[in-house]
This record gives sequence, C-alpha cells and structure tokens, in this order.
Amino acid sequence: MSAPEITRLSTDQADFNQQLDNLLAWESVSDAKVNAIVDDILADVRARGDEAVVEFTNRFDHTSAASMVDLEIGPQRLAAALANLPAEQREALEVAAARVRSYHEKQLTDSWSYTEADGTMLGQKVTPMDRVGLYVPGGKAAYPSSVIMNAMPAKVAGVGEIIMVVPTPHGELNELVLAAASLAGVDRVFTIGGAQAVAALAYGTQTVPKVDKIVGPGNIFVATAKRAVFGTVGIDMIAGPSEILVISDGQTDPDWVAMDLFSQAEHDELAQSILVTDSAEHIEAVTASIAKLLPRMERRDIIQTSLQDRAAFILARDMDDAIAISNRIAPEHLELSVEDPEAVLPKIRHAGAIFMGRYTAEALGDYCAGPNHVLPTSGTARFSSPLGVYDFQKRSSLIMFSADGASEMGKVASVLARGESLTAHARSAEYRIKK
Amino acid sequence: MSAPEITRLSTDQADFNQQLDNLLAWESVSDAKVNAIVDDILADVRARGDEAVVEFTNRFDHTSAASMVDLEIGPQRLAAALANLPAEQREALEVAAARVRSYHEKQLTDSWSYTEADGTMLGQKVTPMDRVGLYVPGGKAAYPSSVIMNAMPAKVAGVGEIIMVVPTPHGELNELVLAAASLAGVDRVFTIGGAQAVAALAYGTQTVPKVDKIVGPGNIFVATAKRAVFGTVGIDMIAGPSEILVISDGQTDPDWVAMDLFSQAEHDELAQSILVTDSAEHIEAVTASIAKLLPRMERRDIIQTSLQDRAAFILARDMDDAIAISNRIAPEHLELSVEDPEAVLPKIRHAGAIFMGRYTAEALGDYCAGPNHVLPTSGTARFSSPLGVYDFQKRSSLIMFSADGASEMGKVASVLARGESLTAHARSAEYRIKK
Repeated sequence: MSAPEITRLSTDQADFNQQLDNLLAWESVSDAKVNAIVDDILADVRARGDEAVVEFTNRFDHTSAASMVDLEIGPQRLAAALANLPAEQREALEVAAARVRSYHEKQLTDSWSYTEADGTMLGQKVTPMDRVGLYVPGGKAAYPSSVIMNAMPAKVAGVGEIIMVVPTPHGELNELVLAAASLAGVDRVFTIGGAQAVAALAYGTQTVPKVDKIVGPGNIFVATAKRAVFGTVGIDMIAGPSEILVISDGQTDPDWVAMDLFSQAEHDELAQSILVTDSAEHIEAVTASIAKLLPRMERRDIIQTSLQDRAAFILARDMDDAIAISNRIAPEHLELSVEDPEAVLPKIRHAGAIFMGRYTAEALGDYCAGPNHVLPTSGTARFSSPLGVYDFQKRSSLIMFSADGASEMGKVASVLARGESLTAHARSAEYRIKK
Repeated sequence: MSAPEITRLSTDQADFNQQLDNLLAWESVSDAKVNAIVDDILADVRARGDEAVVEFTNRFDHTSAASMVDLEIGPQRLAAALANLPAEQREALEVAAARVRSYHEKQLTDSWSYTEADGTMLGQKVTPMDRVGLYVPGGKAAYPSSVIMNAMPAKVAGVGEIIMVVPTPHGELNELVLAAASLAGVDRVFTIGGAQAVAALAYGTQTVPKVDKIVGPGNIFVATAKRAVFGTVGIDMIAGPSEILVISDGQTDPDWVAMDLFSQAEHDELAQSILVTDSAEHIEAVTASIAKLLPRMERRDIIQTSLQDRAAFILARDMDDAIAISNRIAPEHLELSVEDPEAVLPKIRHAGAIFMGRYTAEALGDYCAGPNHVLPTSGTARFSSPLGVYDFQKRSSLIMFSADGASEMGKVASVLARGESLTAHARSAEYRIKK
C-alpha cells in the first residue's frame, strides 16, 4: 500500500477560496428516484400500518417476521445483553453513560416568569416531549456509543417514553447496542429500519406508537424519509459525512496528529480530515507519520481512500489565518492542538465541538468526555448545535394580564391591529380597555 | 348573511376521537407539481444568481426591475417610512418593539463551563449566527408586527446582519412594514419574494448575501423552497393555518369569547377557532353573541367561512376533560378563560402560547405583550417552541482534558472504541494514556 497523496493548499495561493470550496463540496444523493421510493413507503405504512412495516422489513432486511410481535425486543432481553457483557466493557459503558448524563444535566433549563408593576405576568414554561423515536443504524455502523449519546439527553430532559428502532439485516443483533439501550433507559426497541421505520414512528401503527420527534443518523433513505415527515414530527439535523479540523501550532507530536486524522478517516470513505497549521515542517512531519502508521491500521483501506479523496493539509500564514479558515469551514470537530487553547477560544465562531489542547483527542469526546458526539456536520455549525437536552424540551409562552395591564396594552394593540386592518383583533383588545 | 353553523362535539359521543381528528385534519398542497416548479427556481437562482432573481421577480410580481439595484431599499428610505408614520402608530409600534425586546432579553443564555477534580474542563459556548434572512409576505398579509416579532429575537441574540425580503406585487410598498424594519434594526431589505427569494438567501447571489438561517412565513412556494434548502441553511418551522383554542369555565362574557374566536378566524378561511367548555349554556350564549356580532365585522366573509368550515364548540365533562382535549390538540394559542388560570397551568403540557385569565385576549399577545407571536401551529407545539432568541444562537461543546484526565478517560475510550472496531479511535486515545 502506498501512502495517500493528500491535497495541499496554502492560504497564499491565488485560487485558495475556490480550491477550499471544491474540497468541502459534497452532494447528498437524495435524487428524484430515492424520493419516489421513500414517498411510496411512507404512504404505504401510513395506510396499512404494521402489515406494511412487516412486509418492507422482510424484503429489505432479509428477515422472516410473521408479525410485529417478532420485531420487538423486550426489556428482559435488553437487560440480559447488559448483564452478559464482559466486565471491562460494561464498566466502560457505565462510566461513559454517567459522564454523559452529568454533562447533559447542566443543559436543563427552568421555566421562568416575571411580574410587571401593574400585576401583569409574563413567562416561559419548559416541558419535555411526551415520546421520541431514536433511529440506530444496523450492521457495521451500529454503535453503542450512539445509543447513549442519542438517548441520554432525552432521558435527562424528562421525555416520557423513548422508542428505539434498529434494523437487523439477516436477523443479526448487536449485543453492545442492546446493552447500551438498556443502560440509557430506552423504553421499547423494534428491529425495523429504513424509511419504513421512520414512517412507523412518525405516523404510528397498531403496534409502534407515534412519536413527537425522531433523532439519530441513517442512510440516504432514512435521511430522505426524515426530511419528508418533518412537520408531522420534529427531526434533528440531517447529518452529512463526519469531519475533523485540527489546528496545530506545529508542536504536537506528529504521530498524535496523524492518528487523530485517522480516527476521523476510518469512519467511512467520505469522512473528511483537515490539518491547518502555520508550519510547513509540521506538514512534512505529519506526512511522514501517516506513511509510517497507516500500514499498521486495521481499517487502512478506508483511511487511505478517505485521506486521498477528501483530506487536506492547509498551510496558513499564522494562527489568526488558521482560525479564519476554521470559522469559514465551521467544522463538526475542531481540535485546537496548541499551547494555549484558551487564548484561541474567543476567536472561534462556528464549530460543533471544540477539543482544546494536545491531550484532548477527539476520540475521548466521541465516547466518554461527557458532551454529545452528535454534532452539526458540513458547515451546519454556522446555525445548529450539538444534540442536547434542549432538543427534547419545548417552550410555551405565558401571558397573564392584570385588568390594568390589559387596559393599557389594549390601546396599543388596537392601534396596531387597525393598522393591519385586523378589526376583530382590535375589538377583542378594546373589550379589555376600561371605560 | 346567515350565522355560521359551527360544528358541535361532545367528549361523551362515541365517535369523538374520530370527529376531532377530522376537524383538525389539514393537508398542505405541496404536491409534485409545486415541488418541480420550486426545484427549477432554486436551481436557476443558484446557477445564474441576480439575473435569475430579477427575471423571476419581474414575471411573478409584475415589476420591471432592470437589475438587483432596483430591488433593494436603502436604510434612508426605511428611516423615512418610520419618521413619516402618524404619531399614534409610531408610538404604538415603539411600545410593542420595546416590550418584545425586553421579554426576549430574558431568553438570552450564557456560555458555561465547569472544571473537574483532575483539572479537566467541560463546557458549552453560545454564539449568535453571523447573518439571517427574514421572509415577509407581501400584499394583504404584510404585517408590521411580524417584522418586529421575527427580527427582534435575532437582534437580541446578537446576529451580525439581518437581511429582509418582501415581495412587492405591482411595486406596491407597505410603509408600516418598512417602518417596522427600521425600528427592529433590519440591515438590508430586498423587494423579492417566493422561491426565488428563498434561493437568493440560501445560496447567495452577486448582490444578496448568503445567510445562515431563514425565518418567516410564506405561501406554499416559500414553504416548499424552505423545506428544500433545509440543511444548506437553517429554517424555522413550516407554519400551517393559525389556530386558537379557548377553554372557558362559562363565566367569561360570551361577547368576549366570540370576538376572541373572530380574531383568529379573520386571518384566513383556513384559520381554526375552537371553544372547549363544560357549560352547554355557555355554548348557546357564545352562539348568540356570534350571530349578533358577526354582521358588524369588516372581515365577516372570511370569519363566516372560517367558522363554518373549521371551528368547533366542544362540550367537555369537566375542566380536566377540557384540559385533556387541549393537550391532545397542542394548540398554537390557548386561552385559559377561567377564574384561576394558575391552578390550571401545571396541567397544560403542549401549547405555543398560553393566555391566562379573561383579560388576556390573544390579540394582546399578537402585538405587544412581549412574547413572540410566531408560534408552532397544527399540533407541532408537541415538539417545537415559539420563535425565540434560542433560534438565532447555537452552541459549541467545549472539552479540555488535563494530562491526568486524558490518561484516565483514554482507558475508557480505548475499551469502547475497540468494542466498535474503531481502532484508530482507540489508538488516538491510547497515545494520551500515561506510561
């Protein structure tokens, strides 16, 4: 295996912006054909419920379920999966779950209200959702850490019921995933996937209860189905390929930087690993580390392709230049592999998670640091946030006018309503004006 | 004009749930034809920028702009619109804007962090978005109050630049809308609308800057375009028809209840007004008030159709029964027209805004109470919130491991990563374990 040829850019080159755009460009393949297939599945599940879900599952996942009863995993089975884990794995999972829980508890927000001088009360009431659905991919990409990261914020938010769906192609169950579901407090698990699982959660069937929101990653059929049911239920962001941007001051061990880039690249061929540094020598050193370390990696073929096709080494003029590039990319994962990351932090405007200092490998955050590993990808950190407790709560505005307050504000509302020619609004307000 | 025949339901009737579902059912008309038109417009604006926006605007809005320069309204023009308002309107608008600002300032959240015993720091950094787009419908439905309600939370959040788009069919400008834009601190205004305006904001053109998020209501073409660009930019909820649910204990003046229902119904024919009460006499009294008051209303034709087609009087067994119906409907606006609304409040699980007590007409909240009037419609209050400051901020997770913390957590991450066969993750973590 030859070392990958990694794209090299410099912010000094005339076409840097265009080259960077090309590097970041990534198109999902949600074409008309996928849309049509998904629309048919959604309509069929909506019309026929369980029957359609069972048929699609048998067809796509090569199972032979007779009814939905065969596609549910009971709580005893989940608990057994947890109990039967090797002690080391079980303890690691418990440490991770406890740390994730503890961090997310800091995200809880309270209802609030205040009373004005005339007795009028205004406020905001915060309530958890009643029931949410958690999509967990099957097969290779079934990660127990994802179960914890998706379920725990809902649990901390106080969601009444968490319904998990996970496809089991050819009936293959992942014991670690079931154990994580038990540990995270998932209430019910159905072994269904694809657009049919999204439809079952969004519309409800005779067996699968209708949820209020669906979260969790999936393939293009799952993403397309989620986009289609948005509005009927809430959804989280539609995730693109995972990415890391490492800003290094050149003083971090190049082996560490190389391995951090690998940890992103090993996810899949579309994953993107970018190193930005103001040291040309550091780029050479990391290149040498990659050549040395790659042949020993178990997932070297995926890493090789990912680095070759999507990675980049970007030479910046200085650290401020490096930060400007990072803010433009708005990376999912940002490692500040520098001596004084706290000095850099105030200049960072957009990033899903910021890993500060040489010791803070992204991999620690993926599993057990505490913050969520479900993060905005593909530059969406410009406008969205890590998955959190706030994604499972919603707010209601509170307004309680005193007689005096209603009389005063009735006059203001009346003028504005008449300016908009909404005279029923005006009269409704005027009824509350004191004579 | 005859009084509308309003649907009457009772929670005692055997088919109540089915009848309620029928009442609430509402289908948007985002069909394949609309999708295809919108996709073409999006692709064309993305490819040709300004040129395409000008062409679509001239065609759909019957204008004759030569270039984008003709489709921008400068800040002096906005300021003049505000200065030229009649004093009464200007003052009312200023009172409303100040109250909306004051309420939304309570929604600001701070960044936070905490340090663990071994020196590891975890936290959450909150930052405003750089630039957002505000869609304001043109023509009849151009409401200055909507400009304030959409722009103010972004302003309070600290968004760098607010770009407003508002179509001006046949070149007709709405002075109140321009005045509100000036008052709310909108930075640039383009007189464009429809899918072409959404495309310009989402992708950017030579003249219109690309935004990070698009908010604001629009027709089916606007809603379809927003759904399509979701992911490229953030969007707010896709709004359905507006609704009110009034829970009355039978002691509120039936004229007040009737007018509050009218204030919802006058928006458009699809708007929905529902009264739930445990008093059959009250239903008769409100019916009589409607018959008496409707003929005097300016927008009586719209109100008549809306009440006839979509309103309902629901007789509940008691107040708890009424509350259960409300929680099932998850109304956009909920009036608790009862003696002690604070006693009822803890039982309310889902509502966009809760108007407490007989004096608190929804119309007051629409204009000047302080809370936002952009609220989740069509039952989406089950999982979404009023538009708020939180819609214009995003969070980044902060993780800074001490050498000791990275060593301890490196062991946990290593076990979990190897359980997922992600060995580059494992090695990256293991590099940080102390020898």
